Amino acid sequence: MNLCELAPEYIRAISPYQPGKPISELAREMGMDERFIIKLASNENPLGTSPLALEAMSKALDEVALYPDGSGFELKAALSRRYGVTSSQIVLGNGSNDVLELAARVFLKPGASAVYSQHAFAVYPLVTQAVGASGISVPARNYGHDLDAMLDAVTPETRIVFIANPNNPTGTLLAASAVLRFLERVSPDVLVVLDEAYNEYLPNTVKADSIGWLKRFPNLLITRTFSKAYGMAGVRVGFGLAHEEVSGLMNRVRQPFNVNSIGLAGAAAALEDVEFVKRSYALNQAGMLQITTGLRQLGIEYIPSYGNFLSFHVPGDVKAINQSLLKQGVIVRPIGIYEMPQHLRVTVGLESENRKFLKSLEIALGLSPETTSEAQPEQITAIDPEIVTGESA
Amino acid sequence: MNLCELAPEYIRAISPYQPGKPISELAREMGMDERFIIKLASNENPLGTSPLALEAMSKALDEVALYPDGSGFELKAALSRRYGVTSSQIVLGNGSNDVLELAARVFLKPGASAVYSQHAFAVYPLVTQAVGASGISVPARNYGHDLDAMLDAVTPETRIVFIANPNNPTGTLLAASAVLRFLERVSPDVLVVLDEAYNEYLPNTVKADSIGWLKRFPNLLITRTFSKAYGMAGVRVGFGLAHEEVSGLMNRVRQPFNVNSIGLAGAAAALEDVEFVKRSYALNQAGMLQITTGLRQLGIEYIPSYGNFLSFHVPGDVKAINQSLLKQGVIVRPIGIYEMPQHLRVTVGLESENRKFLKSLEIALGLSPETTSEAQPEQITAIDPEIVTGESA
Repeated sequence: MNLCELAPEYIRAISPYQPGKPISELAREMGMDERFIIKLASNENPLGTSPLALEAMSKALDEVALYPDGSGFELKAALSRRYGVTSSQIVLGNGSNDVLELAARVFLKPGASAVYSQHAFAVYPLVTQAVGASGISVPARNYGHDLDAMLDAVTPETRIVFIANPNNPTGTLLAASAVLRFLERVSPDVLVVLDEAYNEYLPNTVKADSIGWLKRFPNLLITRTFSKAYGMAGVRVGFGLAHEEVSGLMNRVRQPFNVNSIGLAGAAAALEDVEFVKRSYALNQAGMLQITTGLRQLGIEYIPSYGNFLSFHVPGDVKAINQSLLKQGVIVRPIGIYEMPQHLRVTVGLESENRKFLKSLEIALGLSPETTSEAQPEQITAIDPEIVTGESA
Repeated sequence: MNLCELAPEYIRAISPYQPGKPISELAREMGMDERFIIKLASNENPLGTSPLALEAMSKALDEVALYPDGSGFELKAALSRRYGVTSSQIVLGNGSNDVLELAARVFLKPGASAVYSQHAFAVYPLVTQAVGASGISVPARNYGHDLDAMLDAVTPETRIVFIANPNNPTGTLLAASAVLRFLERVSPDVLVVLDEAYNEYLPNTVKADSIGWLKRFPNLLITRTFSKAYGMAGVRVGFGLAHEEVSGLMNRVRQPFNVNSIGLAGAAAALEDVEFVKRSYALNQAGMLQITTGLRQLGIEYIPSYGNFLSFHVPGDVKAINQSLLKQGVIVRPIGIYEMPQHLRVTVGLESENRKFLKSLEIALGLSPETTSEAQPEQITAIDPEIVTGESA
């Protein structure tokens, strides 16, 4: 059709994002009972959702016939109190994906470029391409961001640098000092998007005071989400914090009702649920230890991770091994599109889910339990000077 | 800040959409009790939400920690059954606003143009400007779309024509035959976006078989919403129906989880709730009669409407009269940004709400009840040959 051929080439060339396979889809495809399936493919919270958030969301259903508050007054007020920023510095998004897209739509256009790391979150190249800008992918160093190389890759046309910390799907973390040094060196005409979707899973000892940096760097945009540690992926709430001039421009492009009223109510309540986030953190620490221990016992290499997920190296036929996992009712994430065709990414689940995953992987690999070596629980250690050493598992 | 000055001029020039004032905001501003306030400003359903949808949404909260099904399998299957289209012809949106924006992002770019009518829905110029394309606003005829003039306004650079039927905020309806004639005459290289957000409020006698037209016109995109007659504005679900090549391109740009899981579940259930839509329709018919009768008694001119709202002409100081309504706890919508500075738009509410609105307007206008003339209930009649005569009120 000529009409479609007249659409910009950069639109026609987009390969859409491939989400993790939903449980219902696998059940349909395999004729399986959904209760038999575990999904460790989308870095969701295995504890479910903050009970305070659930209560607020249930109550919000009473008024679901009304449009959401387009200004997000209550949630912004709660975020202001928590993070010590003004409401005008906040951009609410339909998930942090939406905030990333708004940044691209405001600061990029054909002729401009965005810099991001190899193996970084797939949404960065997607939103860059969707506005017709060029993406500059910088080779990773030990699976992590190479900030020096990323700085060198910035050109006069570069308007955005995306930094994921920790990064998905590799789980690598840059030291706060390294990110700070980058901010000090990069041109103030470049927006640095610091994606901290997994921030709540970091031990306090390695958390950066990134929000404090906003005062010094008007070209910094921090993105966060309620989809991970708060357990609210289904209702799509994320936010960005920035200089009010940056957030002001982004709010002009934002759809007036981009965040639904259930999500707005749930997020405001979830922020108060410090105890739930603590439990989620603790469960993740324990589960990470369980999975890394199990993988070592199976002789599987993995990338030490600061998120609620882990990418591991698969010896042999990845597709066949993933298929075997699926047949056993275990959904993990192939990450070939991240230029990691020999890795699979697994989300840290409940103790029983982690156990089922490890057992299923053992079967998929054709290993018998007796032949695997016994290994001690281990501390994850840094694999790169810029990647923090910490207590993350 | 230089970074912001480097953002495209078309982004910096956007004036954001002004939503209807939320009840909570008026309560804060005026120090009022929220229960005293009625909001007839955003064309919401005064009956609330389909009970079937509410039940499904409440159940969906159990799994809100999981990401939504990005493919929207269940809702698309339900829409397919209902409308006789294939799943691949459907684009799901975070409200139909999202679908309109996707159309603009796929088919427009700097140098291209979109045609829409004067007094048409504010989102058309917004999404056009946000991608740097030019908007061509065609003068209305008796507040309705002038399709002949819109056809004449199409240039070789035009990629989209937006047609709202019925139109918001004027409530005008184009006859099916007129829209069909337009589709037959416009270049197939132009996407015709037929926005039918208020379709469910139309009497069957004037409903177009627009979905049947999709077979003949691969350049047609129909948009619908669950925000109006289904009473689900809070959870943001809309959809577009088109040729699968058009929907395919739009789905490439769509955020993978643009529709939340509560909305997906609710919308699939709401589609089955034929009875709720019938009740909503009947209430709207009765309320429209109540309001038009009341306005005539007050000697107020209004534009006959096929929606669940009505725009009326205010004699004198609109701002003062609107302020008086607000002080009385009645929120209606000023529509100066629609080039209708002497009109206010009121949503058809419950019988008691309509009564309160009429009484408050009478007070705001400084009219005493005894001086107003008695008027008979009336049938709305067409005000333009292209605007259908029907039984809409």
